[in-house]
Amino acid sequence: MNRGDLLERTIASISPIDHDVAAATARLLDAKTKPPGSLGRLEELACRLAAIIGRVPEGPLRPAIVVAAADHGVAARGVSAYPKEVTAQMLASFAGGGAAICVLAREAGAGLVIVDAGVTGGAAVDGVRAEVVDGVRCTGDLTMGPAMPRSTAIGMIERGIALADELATEGVQILGLGEMGIANTTSASALIAALLPADPSLVCGPGTGIGDEGLARKVDAVRRGLAANGLPRRDADPADVLSAVGGLEIAFLVGVTLGAAARRIPVLLDGFVSSAAGLVAVGFRETAAASLIAATRSPEPGNAPVLEHLGLEPLLDLGLRLGEGTGAALALPLVRSAIAILTDMATFDAAGVNGPAPAIEPMSAAADA
Amino acid sequence: MNRGDLLERTIASISPIDHDVAAATARLLDAKTKPPGSLGRLEELACRLAAIIGRVPEGPLRPAIVVAAADHGVAARGVSAYPKEVTAQMLASFAGGGAAICVLAREAGAGLVIVDAGVTGGAAVDGVRAEVVDGVRCTGDLTMGPAMPRSTAIGMIERGIALADELATEGVQILGLGEMGIANTTSASALIAALLPADPSLVCGPGTGIGDEGLARKVDAVRRGLAANGLPRRDADPADVLSAVGGLEIAFLVGVTLGAAARRIPVLLDGFVSSAAGLVAVGFRETAAASLIAATRSPEPGNAPVLEHLGLEPLLDLGLRLGEGTGAALALPLVRSAIAILTDMATFDAAGVNGPAPAIEPMSAAADA
Repeated sequence: MNRGDLLERTIASISPIDHDVAAATARLLDAKTKPPGSLGRLEELACRLAAIIGRVPEGPLRPAIVVAAADHGVAARGVSAYPKEVTAQMLASFAGGGAAICVLAREAGAGLVIVDAGVTGGAAVDGVRAEVVDGVRCTGDLTMGPAMPRSTAIGMIERGIALADELATEGVQILGLGEMGIANTTSASALIAALLPADPSLVCGPGTGIGDEGLARKVDAVRRGLAANGLPRRDADPADVLSAVGGLEIAFLVGVTLGAAARRIPVLLDGFVSSAAGLVAVGFRETAAASLIAATRSPEPGNAPVLEHLGLEPLLDLGLRLGEGTGAALALPLVRSAIAILTDMATFDAAGVNGPAPAIEPMSAAADA
Repeated sequence: MNRGDLLERTIASISPIDHDVAAATARLLDAKTKPPGSLGRLEELACRLAAIIGRVPEGPLRPAIVVAAADHGVAARGVSAYPKEVTAQMLASFAGGGAAICVLAREAGAGLVIVDAGVTGGAAVDGVRAEVVDGVRCTGDLTMGPAMPRSTAIGMIERGIALADELATEGVQILGLGEMGIANTTSASALIAALLPADPSLVCGPGTGIGDEGLARKVDAVRRGLAANGLPRRDADPADVLSAVGGLEIAFLVGVTLGAAARRIPVLLDGFVSSAAGLVAVGFRETAAASLIAATRSPEPGNAPVLEHLGLEPLLDLGLRLGEGTGAALALPLVRSAIAILTDMATFDAAGVNGPAPAIEPMSAAADA
C-alpha cells in the first residue's frame, strides 16, 4: 500500500450518521418518567451518540483518550511562555502518570494512549507509543515555509488512522483527542486562519499564558506563516494547509478523527488545538463533522468560529486552557450519564406515573374557596 | 427544645468560609505541572471547596443528594402540565430506583436520601424518609393566603437541619439539593419575586413545560399570591415569606442548606427550585451563600437574578428543567476531578518539568535561517 492509500480509503468509507436512530432514541427518552426534553442537552447528547454509532446504546461506551505530543519549529519565535524542552518533559510526565490528563482520565475511567508524534529528544519511554514518520521530530519554522513535507503530513495522518483502527478492534467505543506541544496553539491558529479563512488577529489568543507582547509575536508569526506558504488559497487542499502550517501531533489527530469517523466512533474534541484538527479532518470529508462532539469551549478567540463552522455546541464551558485532552476527560461523565438515562431509567408505563394532563382546566377560585 | 431553637442556634453557628485555605489551595495548584490557572473553573472549584470545608481536601468528598418531595395547593390553579397525583407517583418512583435522579446519583457514586416532606397520600414506602410536620401533607393554595403556618415552616426547616446533622455525622461531606412537587416552580417563583424582589412576569417560566396560557396562569397565581400575603414587604423575614408562598420541600431544603453551612459542608444547588431554597437560606444568614455551589444554570428566567444575588456562576449549562437533584448529580464528577487535580497531580519539581521561561527572547529570523 502506498502512502496516501489508507487516507483515501478511509475518507471514502465515512458514511453519514443515522438520523433514524437518533429519532428512535428521542422516542425512547420521551417514554421515560420526566417531562419531554427536560434533561436538555443530556438528551441531545444521547441522541447524537446513538446516531454516530448507528444504534441505540445498550450500555456505557468504552472510552479512551489519545494524547499526541510533538515539537514545533515556530517555538523559536517566542510565541509561548514555555521553553521548547517542556514538550519532551511533559511527554515523560504523561508516562509517569502525574500529569493533569493522567489524573482526569483515571477519574473518568478512560484508557490513555500517549503518542510521541515527533518530540525532539523524545527517547523510548515505557508507556509512550512512538509514531514518528520520516524521522521528523520537530516541524520546520512555519514562518519560513512549509512546516513539513506534504508526504510527512499524510504519513502522520495515516498513523492516526491506524491507531483509531487498532483501538476500535480492541473495543474502544468513544475517543477523546488530546495534545501537547509547545507553540502548538500558534500552528492551530494558522490552520484555522487558513481554512476558515480568518484574519490571524481574530484567531490568536494568549494560549497557556503569554502576555500582550507575546501575543503580538504570535499574530505576526501566523501572518508571516500564511504569507510564506501562500495561504489562504482557494485551491489548497487540507493536506497542503496541514503541511504548510500544521503540526505533527495535529496531523496525527486528524488521522485519529478520520479513522474514528469511518468506524462510527464518536470523537470528543478537547479544546482549541484539537478543534483545529477536527477542522482539518472535516476539510477532507465534510460528513466527518457529524461524528464530532465538542467537549469544552476554549477561551481562545479562534475556537468559537471553528465550532460554529463545525456546527458544534460544547458540553462544558470551564475556561480550560491546558489541552492534553483534559476537557474531553471532564466531558466523559456526561456521556456516560446520557447513556445511563437511556438504559437505566424507568418509563411512565413501568413506573405507573401519569404523563402530562391532556387538557388543563384550572379550578375556579370559587370552587375551592 | 422549643420549635425555632434549633434554627436559631444553627444560624448563629454559621461562620465565614476560610479564605486563607483558598489561597493555600491556589498556591498548591500553581505548583502542579500546568500553566497557572489553565484548568480554569476546575481550579476555582477546588479553592472554593477547600474554603468551605476549612482545609485542603486530601481525598474525594463523600457525596449525598437529598431529594425532598411535597405537594402544593396552588397546583389547583392549572400552573403545571402534570396532575398533582404525579408527586406521590414520583416519590414511589424515587424509591423504586428508576427515576432520573436515581440513575444519575448512581453514576455519580452519591448516596440518595428521599424525603416525603408532605406528599398527599404519601404512604410509608421503603426507602422514603417521612418528614411531615403538624400533619401537613400539602400546602394551602398560596393565591388565597399563607401556604402554611409560620410554625410549620420553621418545623420543616428544623427537620432539614436535623437531616444535615445526621448526614454529617454519618460522614457525608458534600450535599446536593433535589426536589419534586407538582407546581413547585410556582412557589419558587413567588419566593424569588418576594425576596429579590422582582416582578412575577420576569421570574416565571414554563417550568417542566406549560404553554403560553399556562404561563399566564402561573404569573397570575404568583401575582395574586403575593397580593394575598401582602408581599413583597420590607419587614417580612424569610420565615414569613416561606410560610406565605413557600413549599414544604423548599422549607426542608432551606434547613438542609443551613445545617450544611453550619457543618462546613458544601451545598450544590440543583436548579430553579433549589436556588429559591438557597435564596431563603441566605435570607436567614448571609454568610451561608459562601457554602453554596451552583451546579447548573436553569432555563427558568428567575434563575439568573437569584444566582447573581447569591454571587454564583453555575458549573454546567445543559438546559436541564427536571430538578430532582439531576444537575447536582451531574456536577459531582467535576467536584471529584477538581479535588483529584489537587491530590493526585505531580508538581513541576517532582516531575522535572520547567516552568514558564522568566523572559522570552525570540531568536531573530536571521539566527535560525
